[in-house]
Amino acid sequence: MSEISRGLENVFIKATSLTYIDGEEGILRYRGYNIEDLVSNCDYEEIIYLMLYGELPTQSQLKKVKEKINESYELPPQVIKILEELPHEADAIAMMETGFSALASYYDYSWKKEENKERALEIIAKSNSIVANVYRIKEGLRPKVPEPSDSYAKSFLTAAFSREPSEKEVKAMNAALILYTDHEVPASTTAALVTSSTLSDMYSCIVAALAALKGPLHGGAAEAAFKQFMEIKDPSNVDKWFNENIIQGNKRLMGFGHRVYKTYDPRARIFKKYAEEIAKTDDARRYLEIAKKLEEKGIEHFGGKRIYPNTDFYSGIVFYSLGFPVYMFTSLFALSRVLGWLAHIIEYVEEQHRLIRPRALYVGPIKRDFIPLENRQ
Amino acid sequence: MSEISRGLENVFIKATSLTYIDGEEGILRYRGYNIEDLVSNCDYEEIIYLMLYGELPTQSQLKKVKEKINESYELPPQVIKILEELPHEADAIAMMETGFSALASYYDYSWKKEENKERALEIIAKSNSIVANVYRIKEGLRPKVPEPSDSYAKSFLTAAFSREPSEKEVKAMNAALILYTDHEVPASTTAALVTSSTLSDMYSCIVAALAALKGPLHGGAAEAAFKQFMEIKDPSNVDKWFNENIIQGNKRLMGFGHRVYKTYDPRARIFKKYAEEIAKTDDARRYLEIAKKLEEKGIEHFGGKRIYPNTDFYSGIVFYSLGFPVYMFTSLFALSRVLGWLAHIIEYVEEQHRLIRPRALYVGPIKRDFIPLENRQ
Repeated sequence: MSEISRGLENVFIKATSLTYIDGEEGILRYRGYNIEDLVSNCDYEEIIYLMLYGELPTQSQLKKVKEKINESYELPPQVIKILEELPHEADAIAMMETGFSALASYYDYSWKKEENKERALEIIAKSNSIVANVYRIKEGLRPKVPEPSDSYAKSFLTAAFSREPSEKEVKAMNAALILYTDHEVPASTTAALVTSSTLSDMYSCIVAALAALKGPLHGGAAEAAFKQFMEIKDPSNVDKWFNENIIQGNKRLMGFGHRVYKTYDPRARIFKKYAEEIAKTDDARRYLEIAKKLEEKGIEHFGGKRIYPNTDFYSGIVFYSLGFPVYMFTSLFALSRVLGWLAHIIEYVEEQHRLIRPRALYVGPIKRDFIPLENRQ
Repeated sequence: MSEISRGLENVFIKATSLTYIDGEEGILRYRGYNIEDLVSNCDYEEIIYLMLYGELPTQSQLKKVKEKINESYELPPQVIKILEELPHEADAIAMMETGFSALASYYDYSWKKEENKERALEIIAKSNSIVANVYRIKEGLRPKVPEPSDSYAKSFLTAAFSREPSEKEVKAMNAALILYTDHEVPASTTAALVTSSTLSDMYSCIVAALAALKGPLHGGAAEAAFKQFMEIKDPSNVDKWFNENIIQGNKRLMGFGHRVYKTYDPRARIFKKYAEEIAKTDDARRYLEIAKKLEEKGIEHFGGKRIYPNTDFYSGIVFYSLGFPVYMFTSLFALSRVLGWLAHIIEYVEEQHRLIRPRALYVGPIKRDFIPLENRQ
């Protein structure tokens, strides 16, 4: 069975110019630019342009991207109706699957080299509308399409909460969007690539990615990390909880450790900074204090094994401080990652396209004689 | 770039005991049984049992499977409503994506070893209902849930057409269901596997498979082959059409050739037999005559290169003779393949589970200095 590439580990499915990761040094770059520089200086729309077109936009290019996105937030009213038809307790990512697949029935986004990137901008805009309304519908609020503004993050928060967000909130949301944009080819991106390889439409590629993201081994880490803070309840309980659960090996420490990063995940450091800035309510401050104490304990305990907080450790505190319930965390990740999925499938279809068709190694019986139904024991 | 496994060609993603293919000899077996024996002797429900449980069922096992399926055809009424909300001209597979993802909001089919196969039977039953109603809704007919009967094929045809099918029709539909059940790990099955590897729910795995199947390089071959017969219009035009289009290299001959089979695809031979039996109307006979003449020309022209009719060459004539419009052909393929997808993901998750996470080879700029927006040219 040594021929089997289990989990496709160390199989290179494509080449990419999108994301560079150095897990030893804790470096993450999009198209060669350090994530720290991008988060500190850029609107998410600049990252959209960078990922799709390969360069940071000039002022006039950025203006055009913002215009295109602002005019594409609209959804067919039937798609909203379909989301409203689903049970309110439905999984938020399952609702997104339904919303995006419904969009595949309205828009034929098949592959045309001169149009793909424009289509991607439209999908990114409509993702904003879908995620804002998954939240609104699950909360029993009236659907609301995001309105044009000078910022994708601002339009999103305004639609979700029906109120103007503060500048700090917009900045934190903007940072989260940039930080989750892309991370090479995890399972969701792989599902999108496999789907794009049959030249299926772009919406269906996103649907496949969402289906994979929905699994607890992929998208749910921020939620799991935050639920752990909720379970701990108070910073004074951290030591006891850590001893009883982690040291005694009853639980895994969620939001810690990463297959690639053997040092501090650069995204975790940035999320921590935004969590500090934006956690205002007593609850949010308390969760942040729990997280910081837990980080200390974790590094003390695991640091020698090169296990540190990953991107999902503090992101939940940012999302929670913005006002989102825990069930939305994975959808907020997805809202950002739609860009990474689109950038990867465009790179694949335009530059390296080939139908993805692996093999399975047959290990069953070679030949069995047929037995008629009446003779089977 | 030699490190990249383009299209994952010759990469073994898993082991399997499901389907054995010998492309040189034209042999296809499910769990060791020749496809010819299975089609001639079995109800589709026997194949369902065989693929999920590993053995042909005894009479009492078969009875239980039929009971379980018969009691699981029901759909939540909202799922029907959601399908009705979609535009009637929507792609049938896109509609299936929406139907299955909506089901993921109603049923939490997460992985539990003692329940997976029962869940699979329910999904197979609900696929019957979804596909019958995609057809009915696209045709402007009132939705109708399949009713219990002694045959999955019969319940399906009765629901789709609101009339009792003939015995010959049931046999042909049954054969088509068996013939399309599984074919190792094409892109759709791969998308399902990637999705299952994150332990996403079973419905979402089917959604991802459908998203991949939707692409013209994967699911659309039966439709393309049949449209070619429609374009030729009359058997007397075959020679001229073949010379002008195929010999002069203007078109590819659809439904001919296969990456694996270097001889006659065993499924094509069986589909041809059923097409002969079931094509009754003048139109259907004419398409069959066109197909047969085209096959002769094709083998004469390509046979030396070991290119022969594949499974999609005659299947469209069977589907058309049953009364289905061309736009349904890929969904009928999908209806059957749901079983193959489920059998593969159950085999993977229960016996060989590992998160699928390939790599991408970074070929972009290693480090670029950030340029503030106002300084970009």
